[in-house]
Amino acid sequence: MPTAQNVDHAALGRAWQALRRGNPLVLCITNRVTPQRVGDTLLAAGAAPVMADNPREVAQMASIADAIYLNTGLHETQVASLAAAAGAIATLHKPAVLDPVGAGATAYRSAQIARVLAGARCSAVRGNASEIRALAGVGTGTRGVDARDSADAAADAAHRLARTHGCVVAVSGERDLISDGVRIVRVGGGHPWLTRMTGSGCALGALTAACIAAAGDPWLGTLTAHAAFALAADRGATRAAGPGTLSVHVLDALAALEPEDFAEAQVSVQPAPVDAPGGPA
Amino acid sequence: MPTAQNVDHAALGRAWQALRRGNPLVLCITNRVTPQRVGDTLLAAGAAPVMADNPREVAQMASIADAIYLNTGLHETQVASLAAAAGAIATLHKPAVLDPVGAGATAYRSAQIARVLAGARCSAVRGNASEIRALAGVGTGTRGVDARDSADAAADAAHRLARTHGCVVAVSGERDLISDGVRIVRVGGGHPWLTRMTGSGCALGALTAACIAAAGDPWLGTLTAHAAFALAADRGATRAAGPGTLSVHVLDALAALEPEDFAEAQVSVQPAPVDAPGGPA
Amino acid sequence: MPTAQNVDHAALGRAWQALRRGNPLVLCITNRVTPQRVGDTLLAAGAAPVMADNPREVAQMASIADAIYLNTGLHETQVASLAAAAGAIATLHKPAVLDPVGAGATAYRSAQIARVLAGARCSAVRGNASEIRALAGVGTGTRGVDARDSADAAADAAHRLARTHGCVVAVSGERDLISDGVRIVRVGGGHPWLTRMTGSGCALGALTAACIAAAGDPWLGTLTAHAAFALAADRGATRAAGPGTLSVHVLDALAALEPEDFAEAQVSVQPAPVDAPGGPA
Repeated sequence: MPTAQNVDHAALGRAWQALRRGNPLVLCITNRVTPQRVGDTLLAAGAAPVMADNPREVAQMASIADAIYLNTGLHETQVASLAAAAGAIATLHKPAVLDPVGAGATAYRSAQIARVLAGARCSAVRGNASEIRALAGVGTGTRGVDARDSADAAADAAHRLARTHGCVVAVSGERDLISDGVRIVRVGGGHPWLTRMTGSGCALGALTAACIAAAGDPWLGTLTAHAAFALAADRGATRAAGPGTLSVHVLDALAALEPEDFAEAQVSVQPAPVDAPGGPA
Repeated sequence: MPTAQNVDHAALGRAWQALRRGNPLVLCITNRVTPQRVGDTLLAAGAAPVMADNPREVAQMASIADAIYLNTGLHETQVASLAAAAGAIATLHKPAVLDPVGAGATAYRSAQIARVLAGARCSAVRGNASEIRALAGVGTGTRGVDARDSADAAADAAHRLARTHGCVVAVSGERDLISDGVRIVRVGGGHPWLTRMTGSGCALGALTAACIAAAGDPWLGTLTAHAAFALAADRGATRAAGPGTLSVHVLDALAALEPEDFAEAQVSVQPAPVDAPGGPA
Repeated sequence: MPTAQNVDHAALGRAWQALRRGNPLVLCITNRVTPQRVGDTLLAAGAAPVMADNPREVAQMASIADAIYLNTGLHETQVASLAAAAGAIATLHKPAVLDPVGAGATAYRSAQIARVLAGARCSAVRGNASEIRALAGVGTGTRGVDARDSADAAADAAHRLARTHGCVVAVSGERDLISDGVRIVRVGGGHPWLTRMTGSGCALGALTAACIAAAGDPWLGTLTAHAAFALAADRGATRAAGPGTLSVHVLDALAALEPEDFAEAQVSVQPAPVDAPGGPA
């Protein structure tokens, strides 16, 4: 079993540089609550959002996008949008991130999310511990978008989900946890006020899609996005006096984040969970 | 007729403490304009929002929620969402707050709002003077979400509405007015910039639902929410230079508000209107 | 051919004064991403928003509105809303501004936007260069709401579009360009961070509708709105440290903007493009 070791911070910085140069276009099929925050976050980071979720144009929008972000806020007509997007992802082989908002909260939502997960070949899944556990079939239910479990409580679930679906799984929490079914990384930093800011998870999910497109690699892109968001929250928090002011300062910090800043990222490789068959030996 | 007297400020502080400890989950059936502000407000205060308005899961979401907030922004599919929520409220006996956005503006909207009011057993109704007057059948029309009348101009209407529907009615204005059909309370403080911030009324309405759940009492909960919002606006305004900066500082202030701060709340009991039959003698 | 000359700044100030006094109500048929920012902007400026896009009440809402703003974010049910609004505009002769979001991005969207442009008698069209070029049939495609061309690259397209449809056409860019088919004006100022703020274009489009209603003239109203937004961004940027803080400071600056401040507006008349037949001689 490996001991904890550091991630290559320079690689994160290079991925961030690629984001800035490539200005990737992210098609967001998202909820109705937080699209402004998602859009502001992508623009601050240096990516470009397009929020078109009309099923009649999703496929064509997907064809000009560099990555696709699927958020299951699940308003009435979104089931059709998600199905159209899943089809486009499968055909076009674009990187896609699933944000299973509310998985486990209702039978209807869980069923729809399972369908998206099965139909779209996702590069990454990002959620809170309750959602990831529900998706892996070990959850105890969720309160909508609320995180009741710590990220560590979803380590096994994340690991299993990553193996089953061949994707990267990121669990947001006090320390984020990221697994690709073999490696597990933890990302520290960030700020508790983020949990009192609607859509901070959605913003991180969309940023993950942008970074995967820029990095050309789901693992490196997911790590870069989570490190960037934690660094921006750390820096934004030094100018903020609560969750309201943090919401604007985190955007400033994201816009000001430079590749060399990733040297300060609190990202470390951790041993895989002991019960993970075939984990790193 | 009673003379003006103070409300028990300590009771407001205890209700706020209960909110912080209970972290009530508020299901919001809301418009498409201001859900981010509503969510940010609930989270800053210490409650948790869930915005699921898909009719297929409203009933199940309502069953795990502690309170329900009904905002009649009335997009195309919301009529079905509101009907589903009204049914769930009746069955589950959960506290519910109706925010009759735009009552009186169009015949269609007025009819739909009347239907929600009749179908859902609401603990409280919160609106501006034009909306409350329209709801009570004495309005002169509204300009959408615009408040043309002062809160005092809706005192009789609020009183009558409260009696007819057995609920608390809150009218937002320079000084808010709250009636349960017997008592009338006025809440001062706040800031005129709030009227230049989209969704400040919606945010207050959702906070009212959260506070009612926490207090276990519609009257105390409605007073607590209005006092908290006014205090947070007062404090946020000292750091703001206009409606834009106020929008984030009010969230910081809400997050920092402590039970003992309610000693400064400008809440006072007022005599009931003279034409109110059976008013306090 | 005229040499560059200044616009009558006092007239802009008077139009702004009229906005403050008249508090025009703007019916916004808009996307789901940025309505909060649009609403906050209208309120900060001194106008009043109503976002009702339910086809069942659009016509009646239009009848009480002073101006109508049409944004083609184009969610699933918006085609019906836009058609209802276009009909109301034609019948009621209210000032209307079209914001052709995403024109050229997909065949579906382009077709729908062309239909709105043909059906609604718009006072003004506001978009980025890609959108205006696509609308005039000379575009090279767009990336959703992204501006790939400079405003100047759309000068001919704007001029032609203005002549064909008898409306004012405004192209947002580093320097905005406004044409009525005879005159061309450029508006400087503003800040690059605006392009990293979701919905800054939507906010400007809605403000244009408000100013046209206040000025009683599409040309003067469009100039006033663009000058006001550029001035507010200039001033807001002096207090901001990035796109996040700019988003709130620009609202403060808009709320504080006075008629006399328009003396500083960087608005200048430019010669019409040489290929424009019948341009000013």
